[in-house]
Amino acid sequence: MTTQLFVKMTLDAWHSRVKEADKIIDALSDEQLMNEVAPGRNRGIYLLGHLTAVHDMMLPLLDMGPQQFNNLNEAFIDNPDKAIAQLPSAAELRQAWKTANATLADNFSKMQPDDWFQRHTAVTDEKFATEPHRNKLNIIISRTSHLSYHAGQLALLKK
Amino acid sequence: MTTQLFVKMTLDAWHSRVKEADKIIDALSDEQLMNEVAPGRNRGIYLLGHLTAVHDMMLPLLDMGPQQFNNLNEAFIDNPDKAIAQLPSAAELRQAWKTANATLADNFSKMQPDDWFQRHTAVTDEKFATEPHRNKLNIIISRTSHLSYHAGQLALLKK
Repeated sequence: MTTQLFVKMTLDAWHSRVKEADKIIDALSDEQLMNEVAPGRNRGIYLLGHLTAVHDMMLPLLDMGPQQFNNLNEAFIDNPDKAIAQLPSAAELRQAWKTANATLADNFSKMQPDDWFQRHTAVTDEKFATEPHRNKLNIIISRTSHLSYHAGQLALLKK
Repeated sequence: MTTQLFVKMTLDAWHSRVKEADKIIDALSDEQLMNEVAPGRNRGIYLLGHLTAVHDMMLPLLDMGPQQFNNLNEAFIDNPDKAIAQLPSAAELRQAWKTANATLADNFSKMQPDDWFQRHTAVTDEKFATEPHRNKLNIIISRTSHLSYHAGQLALLKK
């Protein structure tokens, strides 16, 4: 019961933050996404691509299958904004963002509470034996903060 | 054991995000704190005061005693930036920020894992009986996201 409860608390927070980010992104026009969140800083389109790629990478990290959008890694993970001239369109990124999150939600719904306390794929069995907090649920906790951090920046693009 | 592990995961995330925000704030000069995070948006000093007041309000919410800095509520909770002309100095806010977080950390260290699953003070016993996720640990989860959201904005002030 307690395990079920705190898995719910953690997943509720994730889904709330995704929904909040959706709302911010949906309220921005494609033109607004091309603006920098503050002078000289990342553009909205970069943050949208970055969040999408990071969420998509959660699939292999949580042992839920391969990335769906590894074509985004170069522009949005390996390089900073403006390093890659040719980016996917805003429409394409908006779709990838929704799909990546929907795929995660679908996989999450199939997990049993105890499954979340298994190791994630970036930690070895040996390490995990002494560091049991490096489990799948902890990925959700850290990625929720990552999402909030950038959502606060995307919100600055709203008129 | 699992309860202890989950509480550790949640508190580790909180402490990491506080440390990260500390680093951002400490790297900003008092002059930089007076700048808006983006044109027409909140100033750094407002976000510092807002985060401090919100963290300070966690004390009564977690049943850990009264607020220490309720003098900040009017300027940083009840009103938006620039509504109140006379704000505390940056030095005063920096100190209150450290003190509020240190007081929370001190109280957190005295909690037993199960204590975190008690209701917080903004939910009634009746509600809590059917909504057991509205516990003290859930306050930490939501405030960690709140902190990350604004830390992402404060980071934009760095040169």
